[in-house]
Amino acid sequence: MTNESVTAAKGFLAAGVKCGIKVSGKPDVGLLVCPTGATTAAVFTTNAITAAAVRVSREHVKTRRTYAVVVNSGNANACTGKIGLANARKMCAATAKSLNAARATHYAQREVLVASTGIIGEQLPIAKALVGIDKATAELADSPQAGMAFTNAIMTTDTKPKCAMRVFRLAGKALTIAGTVKGAGMIGPNMATTLLFITTDAAVSKPLLGAALKAAVGDSLNKLTVDGHQSTNDTGILLASGLAGNRSITRRDQNYRKFAAALLEVCTDLVRQMALDAEGATRMFEVVVKGAATQGDAAKAARAIADYPLVKCAVHGGDPNWGRIICAVGSCGVKLAPAKLSCKLDQLYVFRNGAPARFDVEKASAIVSQTEHTITVDLGVGAKSDFCYGCDLTAGYVSINADYHT
Amino acid sequence: MTNESVTAAKGFLAAGVKCGIKVSGKPDVGLLVCPTGATTAAVFTTNAITAAAVRVSREHVKTRRTYAVVVNSGNANACTGKIGLANARKMCAATAKSLNAARATHYAQREVLVASTGIIGEQLPIAKALVGIDKATAELADSPQAGMAFTNAIMTTDTKPKCAMRVFRLAGKALTIAGTVKGAGMIGPNMATTLLFITTDAAVSKPLLGAALKAAVGDSLNKLTVDGHQSTNDTGILLASGLAGNRSITRRDQNYRKFAAALLEVCTDLVRQMALDAEGATRMFEVVVKGAATQGDAAKAARAIADYPLVKCAVHGGDPNWGRIICAVGSCGVKLAPAKLSCKLDQLYVFRNGAPARFDVEKASAIVSQTEHTITVDLGVGAKSDFCYGCDLTAGYVSINADYHT
Repeated sequence: MTNESVTAAKGFLAAGVKCGIKVSGKPDVGLLVCPTGATTAAVFTTNAITAAAVRVSREHVKTRRTYAVVVNSGNANACTGKIGLANARKMCAATAKSLNAARATHYAQREVLVASTGIIGEQLPIAKALVGIDKATAELADSPQAGMAFTNAIMTTDTKPKCAMRVFRLAGKALTIAGTVKGAGMIGPNMATTLLFITTDAAVSKPLLGAALKAAVGDSLNKLTVDGHQSTNDTGILLASGLAGNRSITRRDQNYRKFAAALLEVCTDLVRQMALDAEGATRMFEVVVKGAATQGDAAKAARAIADYPLVKCAVHGGDPNWGRIICAVGSCGVKLAPAKLSCKLDQLYVFRNGAPARFDVEKASAIVSQTEHTITVDLGVGAKSDFCYGCDLTAGYVSINADYHT
Repeated sequence: MTNESVTAAKGFLAAGVKCGIKVSGKPDVGLLVCPTGATTAAVFTTNAITAAAVRVSREHVKTRRTYAVVVNSGNANACTGKIGLANARKMCAATAKSLNAARATHYAQREVLVASTGIIGEQLPIAKALVGIDKATAELADSPQAGMAFTNAIMTTDTKPKCAMRVFRLAGKALTIAGTVKGAGMIGPNMATTLLFITTDAAVSKPLLGAALKAAVGDSLNKLTVDGHQSTNDTGILLASGLAGNRSITRRDQNYRKFAAALLEVCTDLVRQMALDAEGATRMFEVVVKGAATQGDAAKAARAIADYPLVKCAVHGGDPNWGRIICAVGSCGVKLAPAKLSCKLDQLYVFRNGAPARFDVEKASAIVSQTEHTITVDLGVGAKSDFCYGCDLTAGYVSINADYHT
C-alpha cells in the first residue's frame, strides 16, 4: 500500500481518535506532529467573523517552528465569544503538555496550531477535547493507517476521505508532498468548513513556503465554489519538516518552481475530490473565461457562472442550456462585447459571436453529462483569462441542508 | 366580482390568446390597449445582454403617448441577433396595423411597447405571433375576464396568476392602480423573466410617473431575490390613462406621495405573490439589515443573506440556523462590529452583541416555519438600514431546473 496520507512525507506522526464531541460517535480529534519541528505556512478564511481556532492559529503561525497541529471536528467553536477563545488556547496548551509528558519534549503552546470544524455557536465540550488530545498523543504513528485516522477525524459531511500525494525530484533527492482536506465551501449539516493540511519533507524557507501555499490555494481551493461562501473556520496549513535532504529552497528559482508546481498538483487533486464529494454533488465542471478586459473581470465572470443556480441545475440535468451561462455572464457586471461573446462546452461551440451556434444537441448533452466538463466563455474585449471550478446543484444538497435541525 | 386585473383602471382594454408559440398550447400572446393614449414609464433589466423586445421598448417608451403593449410568452427572443430585433419591431408594427384596421385608429409603431418571456436563443415564430396579435385585437375588452386573459397569457412557470389592485382618493376623486406580474428572477424552464404591467387612471406627468415607477420597483421587485440574477428580458411598464379626473400630478407634493405610496402597495402585493410562487418555493422571508455604515452595505448584506443557499435551505427546513445568517453577513464584505453583531428572527433574539442568545428552539422553529418571517441583523456600526425579500430553496427548484432539457 502506497502511503498517500499526511504521514507519507518524512518526519510526521499522526493520529485520529473519538472523544465524543460528535453525537454520531465518529472520530473527532486529529493530531499531526513533526517531532523535529516544521517550518510552517497557513492561509485563513477572509470571513469577517472568524472562529476561535483561526484567531489563535493566526498568532501561532508566526512562531519560527511548529511541532503539532490539533484539530477537532463536530464543533466549529465559532461565534462563541471569550469562552471559545479560551478553549482554543486550551487545546494548544493541552497538546503541548500532553506531548511533553509522553515524549519528554519541551513544546510551547505557541508552537501548536489548532483548527476546528462543525456546528457553530455552541461551546466546544473542552473536557472531552482534552481527553481526546491525550488519547491521540498515545496513538501517534507514522503509518499510513495513522495518517488516514487523522483524515477521518477531520471529516464532517464528507462521504469519502480525501488525500493526495506527489513525489518529485530535486538534485537527486526525492521530495514528498502529501495533503488531506475536508469539505468544500460551506457544506456542513450546520456550518462546516474547509480544512486543509499538507505535509512535506522538502526544506523551504518560511517566506517561500507561505508564497507557495498562497499561490497553490489561490489556483485550487479558492477556485472552487460549492455555494459561494467562505466559512468562519477555513484554514489551510502547510508543514515542512525539511528531512528530505535537499538544499533549502530560499529563492524563487527553478527548484522553487518545481516545489510550487508539485504543491499545486496536490491541491488540485484535492479540489477535484472536494467538488465531486460536495453535498449532493454528482458532477463537477470547470469554467474558463477568456478575452476579458481585466484579470478581475475574468475571475468575476468565471465565478458568477460557477455559482449560478440555474447553470448548476442544468449541469445536474445534463442539459446544454447555454442561455443560462450567457445570462449569468451578462448580469455579473463585467465588460463584454455582445457581438463577440462566445461559449463552448468542451470543444463544442454553442454560442458564437453573439448568436446561437448550430450544434448537435445530443453531443452537447453527452458533454454536459460527463463527470467533468469545461465551459469556456470568451468575453471578446481583451486578453485576460481566469478559471473556476463548480459542481452541480441537486435535490440532495437541499435535503442535506434543509432536513437537519439546529 | 371586484376587478383586480389590469382593466380595473378606467381606460384600458385587454386580451390574451393562444397562437401556438408555447408547445403546451397555453395562452401566449397578451395585448393591453389604452385607446385614449397613455402616459408611460418603464424600467428594464440591467443585464448587459438584453432581449430584442427590451431594446425596442427602450426606444418606444420615449414617445409621448403609448396606445398598446404587446407581450408574448414561450419565447424570450433573446440572443437572437438581427432577426430577433426585426421580429420585435414586427410585433409592434403588426399591433399598430391590426388595431388601426379593426378600430379605425392611427397608431404608429413607436406608440406600441413590446415584451417577451420564455426560452432563450431560439428565433420567435413570428408568423404565429402575428396571427396571435390579430386574434387578440378581436377579443379586446375592458372586463375582468379580459384582464385575467392578459395575465394568463404572460405566464410561464408561474403556477398562479398574480394581480393586485388599490383604489385611493385624491381631492374627492377615486383613483385606481392595478398591476399584474409574471415570475420572479430567472425562474423559467429555460430562461424566464420578470414582466410587470401596471395600469392606472391617475393623471400623472411623464417624469413623475417614471420617478414613481422606479421608486416602487426599487423597493419591491428589486428587493426580491429568487436565485440572484436579472434576466435578459426583465421589463416593467406603467401606463396612465389620466381618465380618473384628478388634476394632473406634476410636482412632488402630497398628491404625488399618495400616488407613489399606492403604487408601492400594488408592487409589494405582487412581490409577495411572486416570492411564494417562485419555482419550488414554499415560504418567503424578509431580511432587514440595520446599523450599517452605508446604505450600500445595508443593501449588500440583506441581499447576501437572502441569496445564501444555506439560509434558503434552513428556511425550507423550518430551522432557526442563525449561524448561516452570521456567516453570510461575515463573508459579504460589509463593515461590521463582531462584538455588536445581533440577529433576530421576528422579535426573538438568537444572537446578540456577538454571542449566542439563549432562546427557545421550538419557538424559533415555529417562527421560521411560518409562510413569512423576518430576519433582522444589526451590524452595529452605523445608522443605515435596508431590506430584501427571499424565498426558500427546495428540491422542487432543482427538479424544475434540472429535469427540463434544451
